[in-house]
Amino acid sequence: MINNGLNKILVHKYGGSSVSDAKKIANVAKRIASAYEAGFQMVAVCSAMGDTTDDLLDLASQVTTNPQPRELDLLLSTGELVSATLLAMAIAELGHPAISLSGIQAGIHTDEMYGKARIDNIETDRINKELNEGNIVIVAGFQGININDDVTTLGRGGSDTTAVALAAALRADRCEVYTDVDGIYTADPRIAKQARKITHIGYEEMLELACYGAKMHPRSIELGSVYNVPIYVASSFNDDPGTLIDSYVQEQTMENRIKVTGIAYQRNIAKITLRDVPDKPGLAGALFEPLTNDGISVDTIVQNTSADKLTDISFTIDKNDLPATLLTLEKITSVLGSGQLLSEENLAMVSIVGSGMQNTPGYASKMFTILAKGSINIDMITTSEIRISCIISEDKLEDAVQLLHQGFELDRVVN
Amino acid sequence: MINNGLNKILVHKYGGSSVSDAKKIANVAKRIASAYEAGFQMVAVCSAMGDTTDDLLDLASQVTTNPQPRELDLLLSTGELVSATLLAMAIAELGHPAISLSGIQAGIHTDEMYGKARIDNIETDRINKELNEGNIVIVAGFQGININDDVTTLGRGGSDTTAVALAAALRADRCEVYTDVDGIYTADPRIAKQARKITHIGYEEMLELACYGAKMHPRSIELGSVYNVPIYVASSFNDDPGTLIDSYVQEQTMENRIKVTGIAYQRNIAKITLRDVPDKPGLAGALFEPLTNDGISVDTIVQNTSADKLTDISFTIDKNDLPATLLTLEKITSVLGSGQLLSEENLAMVSIVGSGMQNTPGYASKMFTILAKGSINIDMITTSEIRISCIISEDKLEDAVQLLHQGFELDRVVN
Repeated sequence: MINNGLNKILVHKYGGSSVSDAKKIANVAKRIASAYEAGFQMVAVCSAMGDTTDDLLDLASQVTTNPQPRELDLLLSTGELVSATLLAMAIAELGHPAISLSGIQAGIHTDEMYGKARIDNIETDRINKELNEGNIVIVAGFQGININDDVTTLGRGGSDTTAVALAAALRADRCEVYTDVDGIYTADPRIAKQARKITHIGYEEMLELACYGAKMHPRSIELGSVYNVPIYVASSFNDDPGTLIDSYVQEQTMENRIKVTGIAYQRNIAKITLRDVPDKPGLAGALFEPLTNDGISVDTIVQNTSADKLTDISFTIDKNDLPATLLTLEKITSVLGSGQLLSEENLAMVSIVGSGMQNTPGYASKMFTILAKGSINIDMITTSEIRISCIISEDKLEDAVQLLHQGFELDRVVN
Repeated sequence: MINNGLNKILVHKYGGSSVSDAKKIANVAKRIASAYEAGFQMVAVCSAMGDTTDDLLDLASQVTTNPQPRELDLLLSTGELVSATLLAMAIAELGHPAISLSGIQAGIHTDEMYGKARIDNIETDRINKELNEGNIVIVAGFQGININDDVTTLGRGGSDTTAVALAAALRADRCEVYTDVDGIYTADPRIAKQARKITHIGYEEMLELACYGAKMHPRSIELGSVYNVPIYVASSFNDDPGTLIDSYVQEQTMENRIKVTGIAYQRNIAKITLRDVPDKPGLAGALFEPLTNDGISVDTIVQNTSADKLTDISFTIDKNDLPATLLTLEKITSVLGSGQLLSEENLAMVSIVGSGMQNTPGYASKMFTILAKGSINIDMITTSEIRISCIISEDKLEDAVQLLHQGFELDRVVN
């Protein structure tokens, strides 16, 4: 059963919609089996079936409005155990030896931040043992174990990260992520009808796209970049070519020198504003450290200083974190001496991403002009080397994506 | 939070019907919380919610007709994780600290017989640590971990065994088993209308009742007996007094000296007969050892030797084990030199149980007479010191239970 000679390891990852029922699980089993038959040592990571995670969250919400994060993680981790064991059974049904491993059994050690845990290291002894015995190894995604032997989860979409981390730890050839879309597009095809599939993209651009909307866990791209794991994103429902993510750098030709790779977006953004805060050194630290300690991730930050030593600070967070954020801030605003604490929901972020934009002026102003022509008001702006993002009203989001896709001629550019 | 002074440990166990939805889980949380408020260190074991285990089995059957036992156990173990985490959340909602532990985390080590694993030992360090920190500890029932760090399950009803084993390992005051019936009856009240609740019963009698029908995992009673853990069985839906199981011995008075404690029954029995087997030494071993190795449990065994050195052997098994049993026997019958391999389904067993029967003649013949008067044919007979069982046709079972309950005047005897 051992693939002598070749002995190359391949990691597959299948999302929840790819394993949502027995028939789809059987289909996924066939895909894994055919890679095994082609001579690869196979490791496959799966998400929970369909809406399982939401169903479990719903169960928890029937019991309590404030579940303990530790309990919630143990609860949610069961979803991936179910799909992983069923997938192992389906592969065995095809006549190949398969074994499923929980996060603990797969040696996935994380920090202690329940619900948003990060992988510290992977002890691959058990997986290597199973591979060397000829087994196809199915790993329950999204989960690990912390220093107290308690189960942690990596956050929504965390199975992508499990897969890339395993590919890195096992020195796999590459990590193939199969999902219900057949690759990465220049914009969400449901919004921008002319969106094109990208065949090859660099980690950095993909990271910006993933952070700002594309259906990949950003941390998985980051990990892929650090450990140089090629990631291939394709559909589990057909054999259409997908998108390869690696250290690719776009060739600069005369025709496509000026380059935006894609339009990303994010919904469910909330904005917090603290008005009239005394502008003293250490202000930002005093403000954001308590939020970090609560595991709340702050995005765009804007600060305006005025002449009278008072300042306004605004920043964005995930809308779901709004109650916790307000709770924390109410405790510290008296210390900070803030005048007013304002919050706003129903915001969204739209971004243009492209490594071709680096060191080239004109993209930001072109973006703002396109949005202005569409009567879309810009609330906040943030930029990175290869991304420009605007916070806008959520109800203008679809217009913004379409206008930008059209304005930057993404339907025309050859990738 | 630590219960200084008292520091007594109580183990509760709640069955699947007691935690079948959020409302019932909240009700169970209240019961546990009030024992905690009364000063006990609380450990509670729960089964999977309602029909979860059947639903998971159904999922598996959609994927394969022949699930690997290891995968099946990991799959099924998730049901108890879900209920345990929800129960911990519900207790926290009442303002008490609670933590759920999987079988692994609770230190429950078993042998390697998937689906029917037996507990080898319990490492109580983690549970004791949590108790000493003032936590109410919820343990996922029915599961443990084997020497390979793989999850095992203890078989249907195994959560009872988890609870009693924990009570023994933790030297708990007693183990309280809460279920959807309010105690142990002289016969199944759904069949025998006059059935009476038994308030106090010895381990041995209860073991016979449990083995032969009452709603308790027999291994839990056995464990209770070995470690002398008092077990109290009551309803989770009301506060009616239940049944206490301990080393109780029935007082012998003039009036109730002649004593049958209860009628037990078991459905889904299959019978195997090997005809005309050469009667050589070692025959029974050669026949039953392969079955034992396959984890098939054999019940009643009857062997008749004839003059011509050929013998007929009959034995009963669980109907679900019939296909596996036939498969194994077909392999070895040629070695044994058996003439014919016959099987019969749709059988049941009815038993009278009572320590009062010991060393007293007349019970067996009275039982046979009662059944004969009801035109119920007896297929096989087996007896222990405190039990007499008859294998009969399953369609005569309800008649048999009613006639025996009436015939032995179980509605009249004071317990």
